[in-house]
Formats: sequence, C-alpha cells, structure tokens
Amino acid sequence: MLDVEQAQLQQGELGFKLGIIYEEVSRSRVVATMPVEGNRQPYGFLHGGAICSLVEELASFGAAMAAAQDGKIVMGLHQSSNFLGTSTSGTVRGVAAPIHVGSTTQLWQVDVTHIESGKLIASGRVTIAVRSPRT
Amino acid sequence: MLDVEQAQLQQGELGFKLGIIYEEVSRSRVVATMPVEGNRQPYGFLHGGAICSLVEELASFGAAMAAAQDGKIVMGLHQSSNFLGTSTSGTVRGVAAPIHVGSTTQLWQVDVTHIESGKLIASGRVTIAVRSPRT
Amino acid sequence: MLDVEQAQLQQGELGFKLGIIYEEVSRSRVVATMPVEGNRQPYGFLHGGAICSLVEELASFGAAMAAAQDGKIVMGLHQSSNFLGTSTSGTVRGVAAPIHVGSTTQLWQVDVTHIESGKLIASGRVTIAVRSPRT
Amino acid sequence: MLDVEQAQLQQGELGFKLGIIYEEVSRSRVVATMPVEGNRQPYGFLHGGAICSLVEELASFGAAMAAAQDGKIVMGLHQSSNFLGTSTSGTVRGVAAPIHVGSTTQLWQVDVTHIESGKLIASGRVTIAVRSPRT
Repeated sequence: MLDVEQAQLQQGELGFKLGIIYEEVSRSRVVATMPVEGNRQPYGFLHGGAICSLVEELASFGAAMAAAQDGKIVMGLHQSSNFLGTSTSGTVRGVAAPIHVGSTTQLWQVDVTHIESGKLIASGRVTIAVRSPRT
Repeated sequence: MLDVEQAQLQQGELGFKLGIIYEEVSRSRVVATMPVEGNRQPYGFLHGGAICSLVEELASFGAAMAAAQDGKIVMGLHQSSNFLGTSTSGTVRGVAAPIHVGSTTQLWQVDVTHIESGKLIASGRVTIAVRSPRT
Repeated sequence: MLDVEQAQLQQGELGFKLGIIYEEVSRSRVVATMPVEGNRQPYGFLHGGAICSLVEELASFGAAMAAAQDGKIVMGLHQSSNFLGTSTSGTVRGVAAPIHVGSTTQLWQVDVTHIESGKLIASGRVTIAVRSPRT
Repeated sequence: MLDVEQAQLQQGELGFKLGIIYEEVSRSRVVATMPVEGNRQPYGFLHGGAICSLVEELASFGAAMAAAQDGKIVMGLHQSSNFLGTSTSGTVRGVAAPIHVGSTTQLWQVDVTHIESGKLIASGRVTIAVRSPRT
C-alpha cells in the first residue's frame, strides 16, 4: 500500500499539470485536492474535464491499490460524471470510495466538493476492469 | 459562428495546458487534436481524464455555438465516456457531432481516435442544459 | 406528498407489470421491491432492463414529489446504471435517495439489493430536468 | 448465428412481457420493436425503464452472438441511456450496432426511434464484459 508521499511522488504527467495533491490514501478512501485556477474553461469556470480528470485519477489509484493485493492490474472502462455546480476560484477536493471491489471488475465513486463553499460540485463513477498482468 | 482561429484564440486555461488544437469548427462537427505526451498517467498511458477533457471541451464548444444562435448559454450536466483503447505516444483527434439539439437540452457525441494507429480509443457523450443568460 | 398506498394506486402500466411494490415514500427515500421471477432474460437471470426500470421508477417518483412542492414537473434526461451482481430467484429492493435537488435539475441514486442474499446487485443514477408545467 | 425466428422463440420473460418483436438479427445490427401501450409510466408516457429494457435486450443479444463465435459468454456491466423524447402511443424501434467488439469487452449502441413520428426518442450504450464459460 502506497502512502500519501509515495502517491504524490509517483504521480503522472497529467496529475502534476493539474496540481493534484494527495491528502489521504487508504483501502477505503483516496482523497486529493486540485486548484480551480489554471484548470478553467474559456468562461472562467472550472473545466468539466478537470473534474473528470480528478475523478479518473482517484478512482484509478484506489482500484490499482486494491487489485495489487492480488497481483492484478486495472484498466478504466467507463466514466460517468454528473456536474452539480461549479466555481471560478479556490480549491476542490475529491473523495474516492469503492462501491464494488470484485475479482474481475471494480466500481469507484468520487465526490468532488468545493472546499471554500462546502458545496458538492460533481459526483462521478468509474467502472474498472481487473486483469492479470501480461507475463 | 467562430472560425478555427477564433476558437483557438479564445481557448481556456485547461485546453491550453493540454495542448488542444482546433482543426475544424462547423455546425455539424467540431474537431481538435491533443498530444499524448504530457497528458499521461503514472504508467505512461494517455490519462483517461485527458480523454474526458477533450470530450468535454469539444462537446461544450459545439453546444455553445448551437445555443448562441438563439441567444442562449449552455451548462454541462453529465459526461459518459467509454475507454476502448489507449496509447503511450503520438496524437489523438476528437470529433464532436450533435445527436440532439433541442431548446432545453443538447446531446453531443465525441469520438476520440489515435491518429498514428487509426484506432478508436474512446467515445463519450455529454448531456447539456440550455439556459437563458441571466440579465 | 403521496403515501405508500397512494403511490401504489397511481402506479403506471410498466410498474404494475413488473410487480413493483412500494414500501416507503418520504422526502429522503423512496423504497420498493420487485420480484426476480417474471422479469428474467433468456438465461434465467434478472434482466438488466428490469433493474433499470426499477431505478427509473423510483428516481422519477422521488424527483416528481420533490418538484411538486414548487409546482414543477420533471423529465428524465439520462440514466447511468452499473450491474454488480445478479440473481435467478427471490426479490430485489430498490432504495432511491436524492444527491442533488436543484431548481432546474435533480440527481437521484438508486441502490438495488437482492433481499435473500443481502448483496448489492446494481446502483444507478438518474439525471432529471425540472420544468414548469405547460399552461 | 440465430435467425429472427429463433431470436423470438428463445426470448426471456421480460422481453415477452414488454412485447419486444425481433425484426432483424445480423452481425452488424439487431433490430426489434416494442409497443408504447402497456409500457407506460403513471402520466401516460412510455416508461424510461421500458426504453432501457429494449436497449439492454438488443445490446446483450448482439454481444452474446458476437462472443459465441469464440465460445465466450457476456455479462452487462453498465448502461448509459439518454432520453431525448417520448410518446404516449404507437410503437418504438430499437436498432443495436457494435461500437467495439474486443476479446474482453464490447460496447454496443442502441438508438430508439418512435416509428409513427420518425423521431429519435433515446440513445443508449451498454458496456459488456466477455468471459469464458465456467466448466
């Protein structure tokens, strides 16, 4: 199981570019923040794609940790995200939790809250396939 | 109706950061490319969130253009994206087309192809609300 | 606010055909059961479409009750449902709860559990538009 | 490969109850009709769950046929359906076509049209897992 510092260190290009900062990494929750500034669309609101990126990042991370316990790897199949609000500044926090952790598929939910206002601005789900690594 | 140069010039922070380059802007299609390099996850594959960002960008752009004809604005409600393949290098192209352009909602589909291999790597749909601008 | 008996009495054709029985109707939860027998696909498992029907029924019912308080009506825009397990017999229970109740859109979640095994077999979400009734 | 008569004969309980009639069965398309009457919600409109049932039925049928060529079976993982219109009478037709037919997953799209008005009233996608049958 990676800890928060390791999660941050092994971060990929996109997560780094978006400014995703890991806060908590455990079997039941993966939590990270992301700034609104720098991730906005042309009208000045947080880009829906940035929200989806945070959802995908945290769900994939959680699923990969869960699958690694059985020597398996994961592959995202589908993301479904509802946009419930938005913001022009501040920081959002994503909290990922597993809904289903099976031997062949996993389903993770990620709720995204705007920290300053306390509002839930999005909620997404990622359907994930669990696979054996190629030898 | 914006042309390709205007679309590129009015691009927001996230689109710029991801390297999205508009290629075609019309009533029936919005097309843009995005590099894989710089948008990858920790294992070196194109990040699913980058794919969702391209989907959201192009669907929103097309929907905004369509709504502007009636003096309306748009708001993304939901994105559903299937990941069908991936890539570690090269460039992807997203092609957005409208499925439904109504007076209160729109639905846009965005197919994402890996240019070098010719493979469809994702297909997403964005459900969009059409609203009157606040006066 | 309708009570359980009224909910059952005003049931539509499809709900009746599927054997949906309302158990609880409140502002925060709408609960109903549905038999597996009679709602199976060719291989003898509960049909995914029957699951989606229960999800749509309960989410729409809850949303309609919430909107009625403001004299509004609702219209389902999108359903996203994950199938996590299945069953060949017995009864399932759907529990609908609101995630977002806004003035123009609502989002409801419906978890479907197989009563006899206690397993969560599906979880769905319905994105709903809130409208003024035509006069 | 089943033909239309065989498809109809092997129909499951739910498909029969909804009045689904197969019209065409081939590698690239599965087509069937469903009556609006008998499948409505309390306000007299075609129930969204009936639409989802038609989507699930046709996508699963097409995927099962495709997987059977390799001796595999299928399992629906997720359905995402957009509701674009509705009807109070007449008949709808669903046309299923494959977007991706892989060795471990498939993605099928089903467009649902109201025959009498010619309008597209819904479009859904089903993400499907391909598995080896248990021996």
